[in-house]
Amino acid sequence: MNRKSAIEKNIAEMTPGEFRVLARRNEWSAVTGDACPGYAQANLVIVPKAFAFEFLLFCNRNPGPCPVIEVTNPGEYRSRFTAPEADLRTDLPRYRVFKSGRIIDEPFDIINYWDENLVAFLLGCSWNFDSGLRAANVQYRYIGDHSTNIECVSAGSFHGTMVVTTRAFKSSHDAVRAIQITSRNPAAHGPPVNIGNPEDIGIKDIYHPDMFSSHEHIKSIGPNEIIMSWACGITPQTVALTSKIPFLISHYPGHMFVTDKLSEELTVL
Amino acid sequence: MNRKSAIEKNIAEMTPGEFRVLARRNEWSAVTGDACPGYAQANLVIVPKAFAFEFLLFCNRNPGPCPVIEVTNPGEYRSRFTAPEADLRTDLPRYRVFKSGRIIDEPFDIINYWDENLVAFLLGCSWNFDSGLRAANVQYRYIGDHSTNIECVSAGSFHGTMVVTTRAFKSSHDAVRAIQITSRNPAAHGPPVNIGNPEDIGIKDIYHPDMFSSHEHIKSIGPNEIIMSWACGITPQTVALTSKIPFLISHYPGHMFVTDKLSEELTVL
Repeated sequence: MNRKSAIEKNIAEMTPGEFRVLARRNEWSAVTGDACPGYAQANLVIVPKAFAFEFLLFCNRNPGPCPVIEVTNPGEYRSRFTAPEADLRTDLPRYRVFKSGRIIDEPFDIINYWDENLVAFLLGCSWNFDSGLRAANVQYRYIGDHSTNIECVSAGSFHGTMVVTTRAFKSSHDAVRAIQITSRNPAAHGPPVNIGNPEDIGIKDIYHPDMFSSHEHIKSIGPNEIIMSWACGITPQTVALTSKIPFLISHYPGHMFVTDKLSEELTVL
Repeated sequence: MNRKSAIEKNIAEMTPGEFRVLARRNEWSAVTGDACPGYAQANLVIVPKAFAFEFLLFCNRNPGPCPVIEVTNPGEYRSRFTAPEADLRTDLPRYRVFKSGRIIDEPFDIINYWDENLVAFLLGCSWNFDSGLRAANVQYRYIGDHSTNIECVSAGSFHGTMVVTTRAFKSSHDAVRAIQITSRNPAAHGPPVNIGNPEDIGIKDIYHPDMFSSHEHIKSIGPNEIIMSWACGITPQTVALTSKIPFLISHYPGHMFVTDKLSEELTVL
């Protein structure tokens, strides 16, 4: 086993703190899907203080795509609630930096971009409900993340359409269980926004996710499979592009912040 | 039947719009507990725009006492989501105006206080879960609202202790049902914060609520009664006093905003 595959094996067995050190040292710069199973991962959005009220309002008005887990005080890069020892400037494997509606950088840390004027938002991630589904032995396939025509409720400068994350279920029983399990987890986007009719929300080709996909080959949907889509945490990135916010930093898609909280600690029942 | 008792009988049968007109004309200036059963009532907090981020952050950090239902854009006194035709300046039966930690007025409308710089927050109200409990035939008594020693998580200028609202249940079955029913309603404060040990949260005399009580005589607790306390929407008023916010308006305790949304529309499952 070479060093890379040894690390891949290990991230499934690390504590969140150990994994974050790996990311901090740039020894892990890939997707976080397999890291620290059971622990909540968070999407990241950082905006200047002058935009913090409008963005927090946007999140409150759109709790599906933007469920707030934690917001730092202006200038704070520590996440007091979800991982007090983490450093939000270095502990994600990769970041995206937006300037006035353009991606200007995709760095592995944001030390040089950070200043005292920034506010960091940690938002719930759809991957958090996968562990709940697996724990309940729900059978499904991850299809990918698609852009839609669903307009978010705007707040000040922030506006744009919702991104969704789609999964295919083999039976009605499993689809119902998935709705139940995700409903009790508003911090991970809550229940699905669409059942069985992706074309109604503007998804033209379910087999070609335009926002994010795993690198597995997506087989065509079986005749009895039920397609369900959940609001997705990539949404703020499309909103950053559409809204042309002067400055905004996010995680790089799929490269989340691994918190010290178990996903189950964030459910409402 | 005189005019007053006729109105009292009628408010239980009015639509929210009809009730709000009554409040707007100052023909109803009393508690809203019996108005429009089944419809969600909301606590009101209004702050200057300069404090809006900190207060929204306070709400997000303290979703128990301060569950956000709607936040208006700065200067807007219409509640687009919960009751588009309402006027938040007139449609509550009574208000409280705070200046730097003192109550300076308890008017029946706030037309003269309103300006373009204010942001209105509608927060969930504990009375919203009473209809859910009644619908499930849960047997209980309302005891009252008490101050506690539970420190809220501060946000900027906003800090203070939590107020709770307490009910007594006759059986374990009913207490369990109440936890289940309130858990699915985070917009109405979610599940209780204390079961059976009010002294642990600093309540010295359960029979003498210091924040609010119905005018019914509170009989002593039976030997098998289970006392449970929920976070209460009066909390922002104690926070306004403690934090000495320069200017803040709230509803007068018990005198809520009656929305067009059914309580059931706001539950998570």
